[in-house]
Amino acid sequence: MANNWEEIDTYAKVWIKEAGERIRASFPKTLNVHAKSNPNDLVTEIDQQTEQFFIEKIRGNYPDHRILGEEGFGDNIDQDSGVIWIIDPIDGTMNFVHQQRNFAISIGIYENGKGKIGLIYDVVHDELYHVRTGNGVYLNDRKLPALNKAAVPEAILALNATWVVENKRINHELLIPLVQKVRGTRSYGSAALEMVYVATGRIDAYISLRLAPWDYAAGILMVEELGGQATTLRGDKLDIINGSSVFVSKPGLHQEIMRNYLKDGKW
Amino acid sequence: MANNWEEIDTYAKVWIKEAGERIRASFPKTLNVHAKSNPNDLVTEIDQQTEQFFIEKIRGNYPDHRILGEEGFGDNIDQDSGVIWIIDPIDGTMNFVHQQRNFAISIGIYENGKGKIGLIYDVVHDELYHVRTGNGVYLNDRKLPALNKAAVPEAILALNATWVVENKRINHELLIPLVQKVRGTRSYGSAALEMVYVATGRIDAYISLRLAPWDYAAGILMVEELGGQATTLRGDKLDIINGSSVFVSKPGLHQEIMRNYLKDGKW
Repeated sequence: MANNWEEIDTYAKVWIKEAGERIRASFPKTLNVHAKSNPNDLVTEIDQQTEQFFIEKIRGNYPDHRILGEEGFGDNIDQDSGVIWIIDPIDGTMNFVHQQRNFAISIGIYENGKGKIGLIYDVVHDELYHVRTGNGVYLNDRKLPALNKAAVPEAILALNATWVVENKRINHELLIPLVQKVRGTRSYGSAALEMVYVATGRIDAYISLRLAPWDYAAGILMVEELGGQATTLRGDKLDIINGSSVFVSKPGLHQEIMRNYLKDGKW
Repeated sequence: MANNWEEIDTYAKVWIKEAGERIRASFPKTLNVHAKSNPNDLVTEIDQQTEQFFIEKIRGNYPDHRILGEEGFGDNIDQDSGVIWIIDPIDGTMNFVHQQRNFAISIGIYENGKGKIGLIYDVVHDELYHVRTGNGVYLNDRKLPALNKAAVPEAILALNATWVVENKRINHELLIPLVQKVRGTRSYGSAALEMVYVATGRIDAYISLRLAPWDYAAGILMVEELGGQATTLRGDKLDIINGSSVFVSKPGLHQEIMRNYLKDGKW
């Protein structure tokens, strides 16, 4: 039987809003977690409860769908067949704990490896970014326009300072000329929100190393739907089962940065 | 005649809210400025109109007060005697133009060099951060708690990637070990909001080079009122007439970063 994507989309939006409401209600408790937390383990109960909330809802309504979630309560998945919900219950956990803002719930839903639905919910600002691929990207009820081309000297790039200091794993030197040439850099600490920032044109490009599928499964669908591009830093297609580096950008700018700054890197 | 600081505080809050309302109303127009703007000149009409709005209000009510503003419509000031309003009509102009969010109006009011009132208004989120020195710091009607001590390995540092890549003017190498040691880095592109982030405990420290007095005149009063520290990167008192580097931090952390990372720099 074919999947009813309109129905799945409706349920997913209801559930993500309900999960957001629960997270907002948890803030007084979160402040306690913060005071007690081990600096190396910021995963909170709220993360885990939120993932379990989605799993119950999905299993109850769509028993044949599979789930790939950050907290690990979903399925063990090594291939992309069937319908897979890729969930980050709290993207930007460090922001969640320290700031009680600048985090999001991210859900990407794929069928046989093809993106069907992307939802990113900025819980504190009650801003739901959503796409059903082929039908446009929305911020709440407002349709977002297609992305314009951009060039490096006018671009705002989201890139954490961590990636331009010496680091055993990456060619940080290749990123330095890019930081020197762009108009400005920013770093918000949530991959999902940083991809939403590209989709809305608030920034022009986003670079991060070592992300997991739940960090980008929803966001790349929004950027691509609006004419932007999302690849690894080598320019390869992003893998939704295994993580990788991520380079998300407006049209034109993606080719320019890839060709002039990234192509020789061992990412 | 002594200044009536309660009255000045009341007027300043009314004016900053009214200016914010005008800025919100300007958004459709701003989008046009964005499309046409020269990349090297992002100063918009809105910046200038907002500064002139404050100047008219201040001159009409307090003719003996002086004004130091980013857009240059105020007074030429080379000493800190009397009452001075230090105004940034839009702190984070690049964000204002590209994002229509993540900018603020910043007003610091000083008497003979001593901070009396600080106001930072996050226009889009309708969040007014305010302090009358000696009377606590508020986010809208909510009083903010004093800042706790923090240590480098648990700290979130706001620092733009620009400052850790090679740069003729600063010792960027001294900042690299700090970036490697902190728990995380962020960059929001508005000095006023980044100081508010320190005051609210959302981040633990903020470092920037080459700021102007209107970028920090209000924010440093909030951080100091809550027990944090605000100095140049050399540890000197900040000058409210001439700009400098800025290092704003929670208690304890300021001494640790100054001693272990910054003290040998030529900033």
